[in-house]
Amino acid sequence: MTETPPELAQARQSIDNLDSALVHLLAERFKITRRVGQLKADLGLPAADLERESEQIARLRRLAVESDLDPEFAQKFLTFIVREVVRHHEQWREDDHWREVAG
Amino acid sequence: MTETPPELAQARQSIDNLDSALVHLLAERFKITRRVGQLKADLGLPAADLERESEQIARLRRLAVESDLDPEFAQKFLTFIVREVVRHHEQWREDDHWREVAG
Repeated sequence: MTETPPELAQARQSIDNLDSALVHLLAERFKITRRVGQLKADLGLPAADLERESEQIARLRRLAVESDLDPEFAQKFLTFIVREVVRHHEQWREDDHWREVAG
Repeated sequence: MTETPPELAQARQSIDNLDSALVHLLAERFKITRRVGQLKADLGLPAADLERESEQIARLRRLAVESDLDPEFAQKFLTFIVREVVRHHEQWREDDHWREVAG
């Protein structure tokens, strides 16, 4: 086994720290979107809101440019997250349906 | 135009705050992977390191479980990020090639 050069080991530690933070922020974000999904269902609001989504995209692209991140990537990232949120919502609907059938 | 219910507006503000944090952490992460890519090239190390990658996946899945995030999603997230890192590295190689041709 080869020894990892110290500068590489240090950079990897920083990457691991950032990844821990990213995972925890994502966990928190999904807790909130779960609440939003429930709230929209309670209020009879549609699940999708295209105006809100285009505002989010514009905002994240702006923040990306400010922090020297590729704005295309920031947009792809949001799409990736939103796809997962939609998957969760569909899952809950199926679970609700199951409860209905079972209850 | 309909008014956004206060609880929904509040949740969206939290989502926007988390997204700002996520974008800034991602920007920082790509700064570090850029340095890692340069360092590996300087030291003559291969770009990919499968042992390191499987450690990262195992670690992120563990963190996901601890923070009530789907571990499958955490793994997909890492894959999504790594794909972008690879894209960057390919881009730099092309740029380097261009400099070589032009220089």
